[in-house]
Amino acid sequence: MIEKKNNIHTVLLTGASGGLGSELADKISRHCKKMILLGKNKNSLLKIKKKLKKKHSSITCKVADIDLSKKIGVQKAVKFVKKEKRVDVLINCAGNFSVKSIINSSYKDLINDFHINFFAPFMLSKECSKKMLKFKRGIILNIGSSSSYIAAPNTSIYSSSKHALLGMNKAFQAELGNKGIRSIFAAPGSIQTKMGKKVKNQKYSTFIEPENLADFLISLILQNENMIINEVSINRANYK
Amino acid sequence: MIEKKNNIHTVLLTGASGGLGSELADKISRHCKKMILLGKNKNSLLKIKKKLKKKHSSITCKVADIDLSKKIGVQKAVKFVKKEKRVDVLINCAGNFSVKSIINSSYKDLINDFHINFFAPFMLSKECSKKMLKFKRGIILNIGSSSSYIAAPNTSIYSSSKHALLGMNKAFQAELGNKGIRSIFAAPGSIQTKMGKKVKNQKYSTFIEPENLADFLISLILQNENMIINEVSINRANYK
Amino acid sequence: MIEKKNNIHTVLLTGASGGLGSELADKISRHCKKMILLGKNKNSLLKIKKKLKKKHSSITCKVADIDLSKKIGVQKAVKFVKKEKRVDVLINCAGNFSVKSIINSSYKDLINDFHINFFAPFMLSKECSKKMLKFKRGIILNIGSSSSYIAAPNTSIYSSSKHALLGMNKAFQAELGNKGIRSIFAAPGSIQTKMGKKVKNQKYSTFIEPENLADFLISLILQNENMIINEVSINRANYK
Amino acid sequence: MIEKKNNIHTVLLTGASGGLGSELADKISRHCKKMILLGKNKNSLLKIKKKLKKKHSSITCKVADIDLSKKIGVQKAVKFVKKEKRVDVLINCAGNFSVKSIINSSYKDLINDFHINFFAPFMLSKECSKKMLKFKRGIILNIGSSSSYIAAPNTSIYSSSKHALLGMNKAFQAELGNKGIRSIFAAPGSIQTKMGKKVKNQKYSTFIEPENLADFLISLILQNENMIINEVSINRANYK
Repeated sequence: MIEKKNNIHTVLLTGASGGLGSELADKISRHCKKMILLGKNKNSLLKIKKKLKKKHSSITCKVADIDLSKKIGVQKAVKFVKKEKRVDVLINCAGNFSVKSIINSSYKDLINDFHINFFAPFMLSKECSKKMLKFKRGIILNIGSSSSYIAAPNTSIYSSSKHALLGMNKAFQAELGNKGIRSIFAAPGSIQTKMGKKVKNQKYSTFIEPENLADFLISLILQNENMIINEVSINRANYK
Repeated sequence: MIEKKNNIHTVLLTGASGGLGSELADKISRHCKKMILLGKNKNSLLKIKKKLKKKHSSITCKVADIDLSKKIGVQKAVKFVKKEKRVDVLINCAGNFSVKSIINSSYKDLINDFHINFFAPFMLSKECSKKMLKFKRGIILNIGSSSSYIAAPNTSIYSSSKHALLGMNKAFQAELGNKGIRSIFAAPGSIQTKMGKKVKNQKYSTFIEPENLADFLISLILQNENMIINEVSINRANYK
Repeated sequence: MIEKKNNIHTVLLTGASGGLGSELADKISRHCKKMILLGKNKNSLLKIKKKLKKKHSSITCKVADIDLSKKIGVQKAVKFVKKEKRVDVLINCAGNFSVKSIINSSYKDLINDFHINFFAPFMLSKECSKKMLKFKRGIILNIGSSSSYIAAPNTSIYSSSKHALLGMNKAFQAELGNKGIRSIFAAPGSIQTKMGKKVKNQKYSTFIEPENLADFLISLILQNENMIINEVSINRANYK
Repeated sequence: MIEKKNNIHTVLLTGASGGLGSELADKISRHCKKMILLGKNKNSLLKIKKKLKKKHSSITCKVADIDLSKKIGVQKAVKFVKKEKRVDVLINCAGNFSVKSIINSSYKDLINDFHINFFAPFMLSKECSKKMLKFKRGIILNIGSSSSYIAAPNTSIYSSSKHALLGMNKAFQAELGNKGIRSIFAAPGSIQTKMGKKVKNQKYSTFIEPENLADFLISLILQNENMIINEVSINRANYK
């Protein structure tokens, strides 16, 4: 069993069954007493829970399979949060990456991806903020993308939603930053995950390894309260 | 009657009954044969139509009152466009500016404002692009905001949606720019309109006058085809 | 002879004998009473002067060949300005574009290009600001580049200096914007000039035509005093 | 004596006698075999050297007091580097923060601050890159500022030079990133150092503590080679 540091009480993580999310769950488990893991895949979530309990017998771990790309999923997730006494760290990691031409992008594509990439993060951040405000303390880590700053062909919905997420991060910082809520925006480039496999014209083997990225992202959360990592862009070292 | 230059065939303008939109309608009328004006207020639209017909007897002017903050409104607008043979210039001017704290922002606020500020521009741009691609030529002018780059307290939804619009503009440029569709992103600061009256802590009389702004925005559309004004930020000269 | 509008008293233009500068000189001449043209090439400057006098017999036109890539040139230019009673519009157009690898860039390359691309604009803007402050009115137009935002290989000095110029524009706006001095930052992509011929991997014939660009840039200066065009990026429409 | 990890061979650090630099020297010493410390204050440098030798008896530590705000200082620093066989990590930390109105900024102010804030980092980065290219491996950490993105009144020179540094970081990444040289740009806000004491209208006690910041900055260097932290902005948590 790994040594445990309980600096954080409760962590809420979305996209916990995904390639990056599962690594984040693993890495953050050392640092908190309770974890709430939302994800699409129930089996994966249960496996992760089992693994974490084995690592840290004292940890409380709640899991819920929720499809955040639907209105009803977002509502369910919000209800889930409402029941919690506290959420000290929220990690908005869930996201969908559609590779589609503008002409072939439907209203449904748009609305679904905006639910998971933006409306869910917004509503969960709002709900968790209410709890954080009581403690005058909390961290929201938003997983953005290089697409939060630029746009490539066939990723119009993704780019737009990740731009929106960046705007949201700035807005939370501007409005709640002086009340103890620190919003961190991390924008990684392509990652060696299922999502990364959809990326065209780039060599998969050069992509960021999720484990390394997760280590770094968790370190952002653990920085001294005296400072805040506002925005960080991370890329693969593309020379290999 | 004012001298008329018919450089552009058909223009589609949203938010045409608003403070900036009505000025844009007026200024662009000199340069096109046909105008399609979408707006919230039917009476205002009819008045504008009458005024434009008086100015330019030869112009064709279609108006439709559609609430773009609803899914059904966006769908109606898309249908409206589908019926047109061509749209040479699309101006995404409609928008809503909510001043609301994060904690008081509901899912409904979010979804409504994203419909008018982002989903409508996206779906209309997509639909018009299909027509423009046939002519290998077209202009989409997106009216962004200084909130496309920064965020102030109590404007989280607006900032996020205007960031999304900026992402969309970049995506259209990246994907359709080499096919003759020029996407222009104009980001004005506070304007002397109803919307501008909601802005806190700034002196209204120093805001940009909509007529001056409209003149400039139309000039962006009329630039030589050899070049494209990608992004422009416009502010009030705040020294008065 | 072309109709003349004397809205502006004195204009100072650097890089006036260059590809873009000579077009700017031509276009602005309609709008001012007096022009001060700085450039590298004396013969070109005299030819431009002759042409402008022919077009507008009433215009006063002073020319000076000064090498702004040297400390002594910057000092000479500043002295030149000191003698003027007023400068209402300053256009910082002079610039050098070095295509050189980092490893082959010498201290001399660096210092020379920074003199023409940044120190000259800074010192001239400062000097002209003193005069503008007396009238509580003035415009500084800085010609930036797409390299003010991104960097391509073999253009490290150019990119850095154009980033510096952007920083300078923001600083002038922040400090002197509320005293009537409007700073405009225009960032064009590749232009069909001698400088543009150095650009690698892009088709010259698709580059922005200097005449079209000059027209647009002058229009930025002529906007209503009520507003200011803070930053604008212009690109070639690359679909041809 | 503290446990030592020799992952890095030689580190070159500028500004080593300053508030942030001395912390960086201390924190990086655990990770390298040899340190080259450049700074303004000889006594401080010698004290730091003594302290580091006490902590890690095996470390090689060279110090040199060089004034990088002068051409001759930059040349001396470059010569110093030329003598080294290798530099694996370069940290460009030296910098000067002038608080001065535009009108009162002289050519000398400009040229001096650009030497320390930009020309020294450029020339040292170039020189170290030559060595790094032999090993196909190296890290350049540039200490930027929030002034690399925005500008406040009375900081025109600082903002411009820090914008230039950002442009340089992008240029190195674009040109040498695929050859194993990773350029990291870290942009902290106000820090509790002598330099920070010059900042107006902000509460000093809320500024970032240099020790915390140094820990974070060193962690950026120690990330897995698979990825690179391109740009990161760090701010004080301003709610205290």
